[in-house]
Amino acid sequence: MARNPERRIALVDAAIEVLAREGARGLTFRAVDAEAGVPAGTASNYFVNRDDLFTQAGARIHVRMTPDAAEAEVAMRPAPTRGLYVDLMRWLVRRMAAERTGYLAFLELRLEATRRPALAAELNRAVRAEFDANRMLHLDSGLPGDSDVFLTLYLAMTGLMLEHFTLPEVLADQELDELVATVVHRIIPED
Amino acid sequence: MARNPERRIALVDAAIEVLAREGARGLTFRAVDAEAGVPAGTASNYFVNRDDLFTQAGARIHVRMTPDAAEAEVAMRPAPTRGLYVDLMRWLVRRMAAERTGYLAFLELRLEATRRPALAAELNRAVRAEFDANRMLHLDSGLPGDSDVFLTLYLAMTGLMLEHFTLPEVLADQELDELVATVVHRIIPED
Repeated sequence: MARNPERRIALVDAAIEVLAREGARGLTFRAVDAEAGVPAGTASNYFVNRDDLFTQAGARIHVRMTPDAAEAEVAMRPAPTRGLYVDLMRWLVRRMAAERTGYLAFLELRLEATRRPALAAELNRAVRAEFDANRMLHLDSGLPGDSDVFLTLYLAMTGLMLEHFTLPEVLADQELDELVATVVHRIIPED
Repeated sequence: MARNPERRIALVDAAIEVLAREGARGLTFRAVDAEAGVPAGTASNYFVNRDDLFTQAGARIHVRMTPDAAEAEVAMRPAPTRGLYVDLMRWLVRRMAAERTGYLAFLELRLEATRRPALAAELNRAVRAEFDANRMLHLDSGLPGDSDVFLTLYLAMTGLMLEHFTLPEVLADQELDELVATVVHRIIPED
């Protein structure tokens, strides 16, 4: 396996572009080489097989979507009120919008996971670990709401982003920031 | 265009199988003919082009997922309480589970809609029309909660189904029926 870490990241980022544009079936070593503008055969030095390519793409999307630790620390500084939750969820949606390609590529990976057990195991593990970490953060932060409140908000935000990023006209009655506030206000108890 | 309605339905159902199994990029006239077990060239007599094939698949999934009117009438007979909402949402999830192939095919269509404007227009229109009809049904039924409550529950159920049908281990702490009750109880006001 080749060891150039910058080239590996460039290839995985190219894989994410291919996934979002062409779907999972279009993600081949050849398409990655072409997208990254590297000589044919390069990707085969960095990935054992297509399973490995899918799994590394999933891990990389996760890294790209995770906020910088310092920014997260600043975001959590205000008092843990319902209003802070509105701000945090608006920030989440803005991060996803800035990473729209990564968001769509991750949906492709969710679908590919229904066909590819190794990918399913890795995505279930990664998404579950992030869910557990965020639930812990919620409970430790003093933000209002118990564990089931956190779960319900997580699911509503998951649905909001799926609808917004794939069929935006369904939710076009409200501005996106307004929609996020509506959802948070219906789920998180008043301070 | 060929006019045999039963054959058209068989071809569109074959397209839905192909979509769920191979993804949007695998959905070609040739793949539909093979899946339906009909002579090569048959699909080209029933669909103007691939856009038409995608759009008809979307319309057919919608039909397959819509409950029978008589069953829906029976389901809405009990008093419009929060408990009825739990039963209705459990019924929705059971219908989607019975149509898992259709559910996954529709996710493929959502992603394909980001690349295909004609499909995007049709899916936005269809999903929006169903959302509006169900919101009206909610408001007319006397079920607890205003329009924003309906919207929030819609988004949470959308998120619940995306997670359950693509990465089921993330939500494995609660039985599915229990999870639905948790979500309904957090969003719908007490009677």
